[in-house]
Amino acid sequence: SSNIKIFALNSNKPLAEKIAASVGVPLGKTSVDRFSDGEIRINIEESIRGDEIFIIQSTSAPVNDNLMELLIMIDALRRASAATINVVIPYYGYARQDRKARSREPITAKLVADMVEKAGADRAIMLDLHAAQIQGFFDIPVDHLMGAPLLADYFLTQGLDKDAVVVSPDHGGVTRARKLAEFLKAPIAIIDKRRPRANVAEIMNIIGSVDGKRCILIDDMIDTAGTITLAAQALMDAGATEVYASATHPVLSGPAIERIEKSPIKQLVVTDSIQLPEEKQIDKLVQVSVGPLIGDAIKRIHENKPVSPLFTTRFR
Amino acid sequence: SSNIKIFALNSNKPLAEKIAASVGVPLGKTSVDRFSDGEIRINIEESIRGDEIFIIQSTSAPVNDNLMELLIMIDALRRASAATINVVIPYYGYARQDRKARSREPITAKLVADMVEKAGADRAIMLDLHAAQIQGFFDIPVDHLMGAPLLADYFLTQGLDKDAVVVSPDHGGVTRARKLAEFLKAPIAIIDKRRPRANVAEIMNIIGSVDGKRCILIDDMIDTAGTITLAAQALMDAGATEVYASATHPVLSGPAIERIEKSPIKQLVVTDSIQLPEEKQIDKLVQVSVGPLIGDAIKRIHENKPVSPLFTTRFR
Ligand SMILES: Nc1ncnc2c1ncn2[C@@H]1O[C@H](COP(=O)(O)O)[C@@H](O)[C@H]1O
Ligand SMILES: Nc1ncnc2c1ncn2[C@@H]1O[C@H](COP(=O)(O)O)[C@@H](O)[C@H]1O
Repeated sequence: SSNIKIFALNSNKPLAEKIAASVGVPLGKTSVDRFSDGEIRINIEESIRGDEIFIIQSTSAPVNDNLMELLIMIDALRRASAATINVVIPYYGYARQDRKARSREPITAKLVADMVEKAGADRAIMLDLHAAQIQGFFDIPVDHLMGAPLLADYFLTQGLDKDAVVVSPDHGGVTRARKLAEFLKAPIAIIDKRRPRANVAEIMNIIGSVDGKRCILIDDMIDTAGTITLAAQALMDAGATEVYASATHPVLSGPAIERIEKSPIKQLVVTDSIQLPEEKQIDKLVQVSVGPLIGDAIKRIHENKPVSPLFTTRFR
Repeated sequence: SSNIKIFALNSNKPLAEKIAASVGVPLGKTSVDRFSDGEIRINIEESIRGDEIFIIQSTSAPVNDNLMELLIMIDALRRASAATINVVIPYYGYARQDRKARSREPITAKLVADMVEKAGADRAIMLDLHAAQIQGFFDIPVDHLMGAPLLADYFLTQGLDKDAVVVSPDHGGVTRARKLAEFLKAPIAIIDKRRPRANVAEIMNIIGSVDGKRCILIDDMIDTAGTITLAAQALMDAGATEVYASATHPVLSGPAIERIEKSPIKQLVVTDSIQLPEEKQIDKLVQVSVGPLIGDAIKRIHENKPVSPLFTTRFR
């Protein structure tokens, strides 16, 4: 069978290193930089003819640059006679633009899927898509990995599952919360946001019992952290002993870091699907690596075995 | 027949205004901005159902952002039931990556064409492509406009055609130089660059007579301005009385402005295909507008008439 080659682009090289280490191959030699006018220049510095390629690239901010790096790399690999081109997109940018919520909106999540396919990808490996429906935007095979077992593993290892209740910050996230609660053998609660009248502040109603409990808020991504920090305060007001927040994707844009610092959130537990700059790596933040999870998926794909969504041995 | 609607994205609104004025319609109402995490948010603020749309967007720097704005806008318009989507790309970014000059290079100019088509464009209107072959990267109709008549018009109006010789800075640009020379009824010269041995400075040999002449250097784009400023010096050394430089696309990245300021170039005559920031609008720079040229093309497309490459009445 053909050789595995793993290439890292610029969005998340530390994660790519971990994935390559877990698979047991060195990262492929390539340089991805810029011409004087800002256009992306890619040089693949080793033969890849007939190889099974995995490209590691999150389309996190700067999203358009990272997406174009991915598309141009796919183009270069295809023209260099790769046998198969698998794209690993741990964080899928534009995922929230997945439907027309208003008239004349684009569906950029579908556009991105079309671009990746048109460029020549043969398979996509992704992690906790904002909406599982995005799998259907692709015609190529998609493997959809789950971060919850890794996050659960962290809370269990730290003994934080005792007296815990898993809290969904909205009704849309209940399935995700139930999944984590199952792993932790904990009950769930739901925050029910309501705006009594227009121009009046939202009220956060808590469905379920949190008094005297350790609350673990769970979401797929934390972007500006507005909802999650308000929810944390509401939980404390309702008698929670402490509040943890957890999510797969640490987008953390705009006021996020300041809000989290000021909030009663004790710890924010996320994955390394997005590489964070130094100034966002605050003390409250714990990043659990998805490197071994993705490495395992790559080995299974190479061996034509089914990719297990329940990666951590604890839950197998 | 259907209504013409012209939409401007963010790369070059002043040019879009000029195009709309020349066609005699107001610019369509839209807002194109960013979410907190940098993802592009597009809102089309008027109905466009059944309309004939023209989007004005140069894919100049920041090239990836400008390209994604264009693709997302096409997606939104298509889903909002536009009758036809015409994309006007006065400056086509990534045009120099139009072939594999080395092994394992991408052909990004083709990738971009594929993306524009896949997003849903029905026709492309472009100006002085770096290589005319890029027309063939599209399967949709392409109108390829020419800036040379407008540049020639400027030199003629200023009386600069007298005692002029049009100079191509390399062998690849001779056809372009001959075209401008025809309009100016001037002879041509060619700069013949040669590197006698490796690691020795290039020698600029001039083919043709420039002694006592006003030289007009012509290229399709001026990027870092290395070649053009060295060429200008070589022409002065060979006895030119003065040197003008001209190009359709003022990319002007990196050291370009400083080099031009320091060079013997008397004036740099370009078009407004690329919007330049204040600090690049130096005294030596003249920007001739392609607004009326593109406006004329839009009217002709609307009326199902052939698009004339010889727009300026002077040369019809
Ligand atoms: N990058 C983004 N940042 C914030 N909001 C977004 C972003 N992209 C899309 N949206 C909005 O978020 C909504 C979808 O979010 P959700 O309801 O959580 O699936 C859409 O109506 C979009 O207008
Ligand atoms: N944005 C860019 N800036 C500078 N050089 C480029 C750029 N894009 C491509 N190139 C290089 O320019 C060469 C093509 O230029 P040309 O020979 O003038 O058509 C290619 O071999 C590319 O490596």
